[in-house]
Amino acid sequence: MNPAQGDIFYSHNPPTMNESIPINSLKFDNRGLITAVVQDATTKDVLMVAWMNAESLRLTQERGEAVFWSRSRQEIWHKGATSGNTQKVRQILVDCDADTLILLVDPAGPACHTGATTCFFRSLEI
Amino acid sequence: MNPAQGDIFYSHNPPTMNESIPINSLKFDNRGLITAVVQDATTKDVLMVAWMNAESLRLTQERGEAVFWSRSRQEIWHKGATSGNTQKVRQILVDCDADTLILLVDPAGPACHTGATTCFFRSLEI
Repeated sequence: MNPAQGDIFYSHNPPTMNESIPINSLKFDNRGLITAVVQDATTKDVLMVAWMNAESLRLTQERGEAVFWSRSRQEIWHKGATSGNTQKVRQILVDCDADTLILLVDPAGPACHTGATTCFFRSLEI
Repeated sequence: MNPAQGDIFYSHNPPTMNESIPINSLKFDNRGLITAVVQDATTKDVLMVAWMNAESLRLTQERGEAVFWSRSRQEIWHKGATSGNTQKVRQILVDCDADTLILLVDPAGPACHTGATTCFFRSLEI
C-alpha cells in the first residue's frame, strides 16, 4: 500500500494477479536493503521477517534457499547453515511499491532460534 | 529470528505459544517505528506491510482498527479512512525480537490502492 497515493480504491481496474516482474524493478532502501516476510507455503503462517540486499537475493535465487542480510552481523546469512533449518523457496511475491518481498517457503525445521515454528509466538496485551 | 544469536536451535526448550507481552516491551527503531505485517485472519494472506509508531499502535488498540504511520506523508494514517477499506484488528502478534508485529485482521475491502485484495499481487521473475 502506498500511503502517498492516499486511500483511493480503483475498483474499476484491479491489477492482474501473479504478473511477474524483473529483479531490477525492486526498490532497495538507502541502506541497499529490502524487507523480506517469510511465509510457510503450506500453512501460510508467517515465520519471520528479515532483510535482504541484492547479493542475498541473488544467492537465494541461485540456491533455492533463503539467504538474508544480517544487519547486526553485517554479513550474508544463509538461514539454516548452522541449525539445518533451511527454508526452500517456492516463490517470491512483490508488493505494489516493489519495496517488500514475501518468500513462500518449505521450512526444514523451526524458523525461530528459540525452537518455535514461527518467531511470532507471542501476542500483545490488549 | 535474531541472527546475532546465530542459527542455534534450542529444541530442548521451545517457548510457550501465545504468551502475551506488554506494549512497553516492544522495540521501536531509532525513528520510533516498528514494522507491521498485516495478515488476513481468515485466509492468512499477507495483505500489506506498513509501519507503526507508538501513537498509531495506541490508536489501533483504542479503535480496534489498523492505524499506521505514513513515512512518506509523516502522519498518522487510519487505513480505510478515505476508501472505507478498514481493517478490524483481531489480534497482534509479536516476534522473538519484539521489533516486528503481525496484525491479524478482518479487512472490509481490498488492502491495496490498486484494488487488489493484497498488495502482493506480483511475483519475482526467476
